[in-house]
Amino acid sequence: MDKLLNSLEESRAALTVVSHEPFNAEAPPEAFESTVTPTHLHYVRSNFALPEHDGKLNIGGAVGKPLTLTLDALRAMPRTELAVTLECAGNGRLGQTPLPVGEPWHSNAVSTARWAGTLLRDILASAEPLKGGTTVCFAGADRGTYHGHEDVHFARALPIEQALDPAAQVLIAYEMNGEPLNADHGAPFRLIVPRWYAVASVKWLTHVNVLTAPFQGPFQTVRYIYDWPDQASQPVKFMLPRAKIVTPVSGTSLRPGTYTVRGKAWSGTGPIVSVEVNVTRGDSWQAATVEPPADPFAWQDWSFTWQLHHTGRHTLRARATDAAGNVQPEAPRWNRFGYGNNAVELIYVQVK
Amino acid sequence: MDKLLNSLEESRAALTVVSHEPFNAEAPPEAFESTVTPTHLHYVRSNFALPEHDGKLNIGGAVGKPLTLTLDALRAMPRTELAVTLECAGNGRLGQTPLPVGEPWHSNAVSTARWAGTLLRDILASAEPLKGGTTVCFAGADRGTYHGHEDVHFARALPIEQALDPAAQVLIAYEMNGEPLNADHGAPFRLIVPRWYAVASVKWLTHVNVLTAPFQGPFQTVRYIYDWPDQASQPVKFMLPRAKIVTPVSGTSLRPGTYTVRGKAWSGTGPIVSVEVNVTRGDSWQAATVEPPADPFAWQDWSFTWQLHHTGRHTLRARATDAAGNVQPEAPRWNRFGYGNNAVELIYVQVK
Repeated sequence: MDKLLNSLEESRAALTVVSHEPFNAEAPPEAFESTVTPTHLHYVRSNFALPEHDGKLNIGGAVGKPLTLTLDALRAMPRTELAVTLECAGNGRLGQTPLPVGEPWHSNAVSTARWAGTLLRDILASAEPLKGGTTVCFAGADRGTYHGHEDVHFARALPIEQALDPAAQVLIAYEMNGEPLNADHGAPFRLIVPRWYAVASVKWLTHVNVLTAPFQGPFQTVRYIYDWPDQASQPVKFMLPRAKIVTPVSGTSLRPGTYTVRGKAWSGTGPIVSVEVNVTRGDSWQAATVEPPADPFAWQDWSFTWQLHHTGRHTLRARATDAAGNVQPEAPRWNRFGYGNNAVELIYVQVK
Repeated sequence: MDKLLNSLEESRAALTVVSHEPFNAEAPPEAFESTVTPTHLHYVRSNFALPEHDGKLNIGGAVGKPLTLTLDALRAMPRTELAVTLECAGNGRLGQTPLPVGEPWHSNAVSTARWAGTLLRDILASAEPLKGGTTVCFAGADRGTYHGHEDVHFARALPIEQALDPAAQVLIAYEMNGEPLNADHGAPFRLIVPRWYAVASVKWLTHVNVLTAPFQGPFQTVRYIYDWPDQASQPVKFMLPRAKIVTPVSGTSLRPGTYTVRGKAWSGTGPIVSVEVNVTRGDSWQAATVEPPADPFAWQDWSFTWQLHHTGRHTLRARATDAAGNVQPEAPRWNRFGYGNNAVELIYVQVK
């Protein structure tokens, strides 16, 4: 236990802690310097305290052949490795006004790791889902009281078509960046659902159950919904397009000259096809250079050459558009729980 | 000229420059440690380059006795000294989304100085305004092209009742914090209009004209109006209530313990009667301690004891209410030119 705690402390030391119990922490600025985020710099989101896990993955519900798998059994199956950008649905909550309830995430609850494991659809297929199955529910070992619901496990569901879709590449992952998962990231295995906000990627996975009706757990119906002031609520699903400015850091001082602005951009609804920037007093948006996606589920690099000839304050905004035509709004779209704030980012620098 | 430039450079060195030509600069954080802002830490707002001033103040228009006054003549009249909080109407513009046009002010375009000079109403009385006079127009020596208007002087107007109102205490000031005005603050004399956004306090004053019709200059009608998306435009007048959090600074790291949050609060529509704060996960607003106004036109100090027992991120918001019952909104009220953003301020700290 001491060893676990020591190793936990080490793995958490570089993060910006939002809460300790449960453990929630943002990636530090240096996490955005590489395409793949080192594990100790990857943000962490937990709804409950770290759970014990009995090492078993139970596949059941409306299936013909219920299964119980161990880590060894998963490792014995074909291995798939994917670079996946995960973003907390509450990332950017501090930028919504009035401040919504929920963890006060600034803007660094997003990271990209290489996840390796077994494709969910292969495991589901071997369990032989029954005809009436419509939904696949994923439960983690983590549990507690949640908004009036006593002793609930963290559990989320996907439509069965999504879970079985070869293009969706949903993974039961047992490795992160080439190492076994650590406790904060869902050891011994977790779900990874590319393109979705990370709430879908259930950690410390214990049960995969095929259901014949929609799942009504509190993480599906009480939270992780867009509760709009002016229209019907909607479930939180795919990551909204977003361009993050990595360098320069807002508020810093620079000498007059030519700078390369660098950033990341991602979306759950297709690759990013353009990033545009708007500079101080600029009346138009100019194209940044966007790198093609190296991996289909990972963020893309973008850059822009910024001429800073005049002393004083200069602002810069960045706006991403994805292949589906979704574009970032300039103002946050407020909702009661503060999800999906993908408003255009603004930074400013002081030129001296 | 070299001496003027050297002295200008000195007087500007501690400020956070927004633009150099014309010179616009915010107060640095240390400017908020005292009630009266030292002159070299007072924010500066200019619409045009520094003008030449011929040393004459002309009182004319619809008056019985036009006057020309010099600095010596003003000094020979009864002297009034007032501590006045001036705030740029665009203060907080960077917090509005979409980003409005205009200087990119963050939140430090507000300061308090002791201004001494001659009461406007005494000067106006001696010029004997005619019965039909409804408006008093104030022009500065600064001039230039402004939003399509060529070679206009900076000029603003007040209703004549306001200009003559003994309670309004409108001042023609020739001293700031016990010294003659410097170039950036309107030497040799300027208007000081307590309670109004500082656009009313015309610098480098040359002409005071009584008009018999509303004034239609571009600083009265093209800018410095609230151009709302959903209702008729309104002129920018009185400062809206606002509580500023001075310490701790947002984003800083603290040890667990008890902290005294300190801030300033002000309003153009009466003294501040309450400041409330809302802490992380707090579902209610708690009263801060507000000092009574030491001067009727200057900001007030407020403080709050903050218990920071848990490690992680803590947020704090502060909200002021004035004697007229005006209270800060939680979300900025967006308008096309980004004026009057008095939304509740949010800070966060990392407790380690």
